[in-house]
Amino acid sequence: MKKPAINRRSYCPVTFALDIIGDRWALLIIRDILFLGKSNFGDFAKSPEGIATNILTDRLKRLEGQNIIAKNPDENNLSKYVYSLTDKGLDLLPIMVEMILFSEKHDLETAASKSTLKKIRTNKNKFIKELRQKHKTAFKNNLQGG
Amino acid sequence: MKKPAINRRSYCPVTFALDIIGDRWALLIIRDILFLGKSNFGDFAKSPEGIATNILTDRLKRLEGQNIIAKNPDENNLSKYVYSLTDKGLDLLPIMVEMILFSEKHDLETAASKSTLKKIRTNKNKFIKELRQKHKTAFKNNLQGG
Repeated sequence: MKKPAINRRSYCPVTFALDIIGDRWALLIIRDILFLGKSNFGDFAKSPEGIATNILTDRLKRLEGQNIIAKNPDENNLSKYVYSLTDKGLDLLPIMVEMILFSEKHDLETAASKSTLKKIRTNKNKFIKELRQKHKTAFKNNLQGG
Repeated sequence: MKKPAINRRSYCPVTFALDIIGDRWALLIIRDILFLGKSNFGDFAKSPEGIATNILTDRLKRLEGQNIIAKNPDENNLSKYVYSLTDKGLDLLPIMVEMILFSEKHDLETAASKSTLKKIRTNKNKFIKELRQKHKTAFKNNLQGG
């Protein structure tokens, strides 16, 4: 494997994805947008895992820099922002679906939604496609709103 | 969602999986075992990402505690150990496959193996099943050897 550039650990595909999701917090913001329909700082801060606001600020900035999320003014309050997933961010959805299936199998106390699990088990690709579409529409609306 | 126990951040399935893989290093050890056939401390330490030995020691212990990897004496050198993936560890394979597909799409410089990508694209489930089987056999042999 070639020697990595100064800003990279390696050219391994696992490492590339890990440098986005390999963190205790970043993926929880993406979960909040993707599955819980959250879009603003205050709502992200209220998640049960209790993210500190300085960490939240840092991770939002980092995810925006990685082109995983996009930040736009909130049309209802122009001093605030709404966050949505970009196409690249939505491409993390299959990874998260596999994480949910792993946890459903190995965590006896999982709070995974039964209806979500059923949809995933019935037709994983359809579940991913429909959730993607829902967010793409929301993203488009945000851009038009902003 | 119910209030989490003291040792848990929440009962969310994404969080459960993230508390195993949401780290800059743990999943790279699993990658080394899974895709590169590594099994011992010295080989893990040589990966291009340059993991520090104290971090490697900590992550091996943590992954063993989470029942993701198993540690057995090396039959060729009983003062050393070999590490293999447990069944639970092997259940992380679908997550890693999706990470590889994500990186192949978004990382122009990816070093993802063309033959691996081809196998994944041709039949993802078959690729996962065959790699699982290969490791289950190795694990069994390790146990018999130890």
